[in-house]
Amino acid sequence: MRAALEEANAAALRDEVPIGAVLINAHGEIIAKAGNETRAQNDPSAHAEILAIRQACAKEGAQRIPNTTLYVTLEPCAMCAAAISFARISRVVFAAPDEKGGGVIHGGKFYEQPTCHHRPTYDHGLMANECGETLKSFFQKKRAQKSLK
Amino acid sequence: MRAALEEANAAALRDEVPIGAVLINAHGEIIAKAGNETRAQNDPSAHAEILAIRQACAKEGAQRIPNTTLYVTLEPCAMCAAAISFARISRVVFAAPDEKGGGVIHGGKFYEQPTCHHRPTYDHGLMANECGETLKSFFQKKRAQKSLK
Repeated sequence: MRAALEEANAAALRDEVPIGAVLINAHGEIIAKAGNETRAQNDPSAHAEILAIRQACAKEGAQRIPNTTLYVTLEPCAMCAAAISFARISRVVFAAPDEKGGGVIHGGKFYEQPTCHHRPTYDHGLMANECGETLKSFFQKKRAQKSLK
Repeated sequence: MRAALEEANAAALRDEVPIGAVLINAHGEIIAKAGNETRAQNDPSAHAEILAIRQACAKEGAQRIPNTTLYVTLEPCAMCAAAISFARISRVVFAAPDEKGGGVIHGGKFYEQPTCHHRPTYDHGLMANECGETLKSFFQKKRAQKSLK
């Protein structure tokens, strides 16, 4: 999760929403890592999780990457929760919950739906404060910049 | 929807799940079109809708493409339903409903969740038979091929 938070911090420096994700294989090795790039790539689907999945799938030459764990600094949204399932990722660990936009334990709770055909196990709370703080201070700065304009 | 179905048929010829999507602007002009490419791109997020959104956003140089309508041959899944919302697409028209994997009128019904912050209007049923038939016959052939092995 520390590596995912580094990706989130790097995203903040690029003026992207600071969320980071890291994929590890069954040996505990990092196989992909990414921060949000929706602004840089002009792509609303370029969330950290999707970018990490695309990286790992490209490396593997496959559209499924079983026996992997995704660490991500914020609860995945509906889009990412579904992409994680499609990629057959085994386990998801997210730091901070996302009441406003989460899709795992909030909103449509994708993994609890009959339309979900692969359910990763998931945990949350690991480094939740640090990862949540990074997001909070990013948006506080944004609001302060706006109010100065 | 006819153009979207052409994309679906082209996808079938590439041995991809035959779903097609077309984005049109406020003048009724096609600004992006795509069929599924999850196999060719080794990317579980390369659904027709996401590829069309990426195309249109790249053209516009923006991560949001308001005042557009997406035509798609099958009900979008949770991933695509959310991506459509993030892209600020105004309207979604899908042909066949998808009881097994849909995310608009099935499963998590993303646009009805409090975690959805832009709700496109949506309609369905247009050319539902033709578009559904394309999918059905693709999977029938797949099963027949498998049973011959």
